[in-house]
Amino acid sequence: MNNQQLFENIQKKGSFLCVGLDTDIRKIPKFLFDHKDPIFEFNKAIIDATAKYTVAYKPNLAFYESEGLEGWQSLQKTVTYLHQNHPDIFLIADAKRGDIGNTSSMYARAFFEKMDFDAVTVAPYMGEDSVKPFLDYKDKYVVLLALTSNKGASDFQFTAEENSGEKLFEKVLRISQNWGDAENMMYVIGATKAEELAGIRKIVPAHFLLVPGVGAQGGSLQEVAKYGLNHQCGLLVNSSRAIIYASDDENFALKAGESAKETRDEMYELLTQKGLIA
Amino acid sequence: MNNQQLFENIQKKGSFLCVGLDTDIRKIPKFLFDHKDPIFEFNKAIIDATAKYTVAYKPNLAFYESEGLEGWQSLQKTVTYLHQNHPDIFLIADAKRGDIGNTSSMYARAFFEKMDFDAVTVAPYMGEDSVKPFLDYKDKYVVLLALTSNKGASDFQFTAEENSGEKLFEKVLRISQNWGDAENMMYVIGATKAEELAGIRKIVPAHFLLVPGVGAQGGSLQEVAKYGLNHQCGLLVNSSRAIIYASDDENFALKAGESAKETRDEMYELLTQKGLIA
Repeated sequence: MNNQQLFENIQKKGSFLCVGLDTDIRKIPKFLFDHKDPIFEFNKAIIDATAKYTVAYKPNLAFYESEGLEGWQSLQKTVTYLHQNHPDIFLIADAKRGDIGNTSSMYARAFFEKMDFDAVTVAPYMGEDSVKPFLDYKDKYVVLLALTSNKGASDFQFTAEENSGEKLFEKVLRISQNWGDAENMMYVIGATKAEELAGIRKIVPAHFLLVPGVGAQGGSLQEVAKYGLNHQCGLLVNSSRAIIYASDDENFALKAGESAKETRDEMYELLTQKGLIA
Repeated sequence: MNNQQLFENIQKKGSFLCVGLDTDIRKIPKFLFDHKDPIFEFNKAIIDATAKYTVAYKPNLAFYESEGLEGWQSLQKTVTYLHQNHPDIFLIADAKRGDIGNTSSMYARAFFEKMDFDAVTVAPYMGEDSVKPFLDYKDKYVVLLALTSNKGASDFQFTAEENSGEKLFEKVLRISQNWGDAENMMYVIGATKAEELAGIRKIVPAHFLLVPGVGAQGGSLQEVAKYGLNHQCGLLVNSSRAIIYASDDENFALKAGESAKETRDEMYELLTQKGLIA
């Protein structure tokens, strides 16, 4: 998928929602344990109930790895199911990988060849050669961590450089543009600091931003849209727990769908106001 | 395992060598493909030939993930084999993980409970809550990336903070000491900058340092030992390619063993000079 195709899906669905498939076996409804693969059954039901309000899904690898081999299997089945049943979905591996060049190329192979994700989140600490191997794939994306939504973001990401005063996350945004462009890179920008978005848009006007932290973590969708939308939308706003755990009852998928629809309706309004859909 | 036990193994073997099991299916001897699981067969042969010269093994996850489910299976078998046959080995998952708190706790579960590694490498970019969940396990370690051995290390890790002039990797060393101590944290310090080790030892005198980049990447073991050894050795020097791919012939395991022994012999000498073994 490329930016234009992603934007067309956003227009078609009136949504820039990404649903985080952070599927925790300890939190899913108990009756799913009658199935052989409860994690996959949960994902399948959530996907079917939310796909029409959603342009992207983002499984976080940690939740699957914590179940060992079986978790890895559930993830593969989820990816296959999405491709077969919802081919217009943009699929992000939230893996936060990154290693020396020859090793990162193995991670790229894992996520883009073995598993056919459209994008993978990557941590910037190890610099250019840790990111580059992911950029060699056509119509695939690195989603580079810049400003995260967690408390620990303040430990290093705001470190101001001597002379320039440039903060570390700003430096990541600036320097990484020498490695790729808006057609193969996106950035993680936490919504808890929506006021930072205006400045960030000056550094990366054209890139898509993957924005976690709306809802449960306190960010406001209105604020994110105000500072973050660009001519191709340029935003994927992620919601995980508020949607996938909207209910832990028999009706969990229905409730997830309702929660996704609610967010979509708000996004539709914001896209219309901005003149991005007719 | 704790620091004292690790040090005793170092004394017993006269070695602070860590062998990196970066097993690339495209590089292993072709005759291994007669086996059902060639990656595991390769690892098993390498382990049996090198274990008496080695105190630690470090599979890099990327190489296993790039093979999908089968790779994950080969990794689990390798871990089980090591625990059963070489229980004194310190086992590091080179995974470079790190995510928001509740997600990092899933990674900790994956590596410390599902797979029983002794340590896992973690990237510092997301700060305290991305590292803390790994520190809650007794006798387990975070190996935090501080100064890496790759070219891209210069992109962000040397960023000097305004006023203090402190470099980012120094800040990572300093700040992270508020999160844990030498009994549950180690640091990755690339050997390509051996002269940095003297300064690093002032910031973290007691911690074990995991040092990649000796040999193939150009670092000198003598230099690393000169600046890095402490009263409990405090070093694990990693070698991957120079040992595991010493030969791609029938005799690959024998050659790997010879290469490991050669490094061990040099280490034995350095430990003796320093008075760390009688």
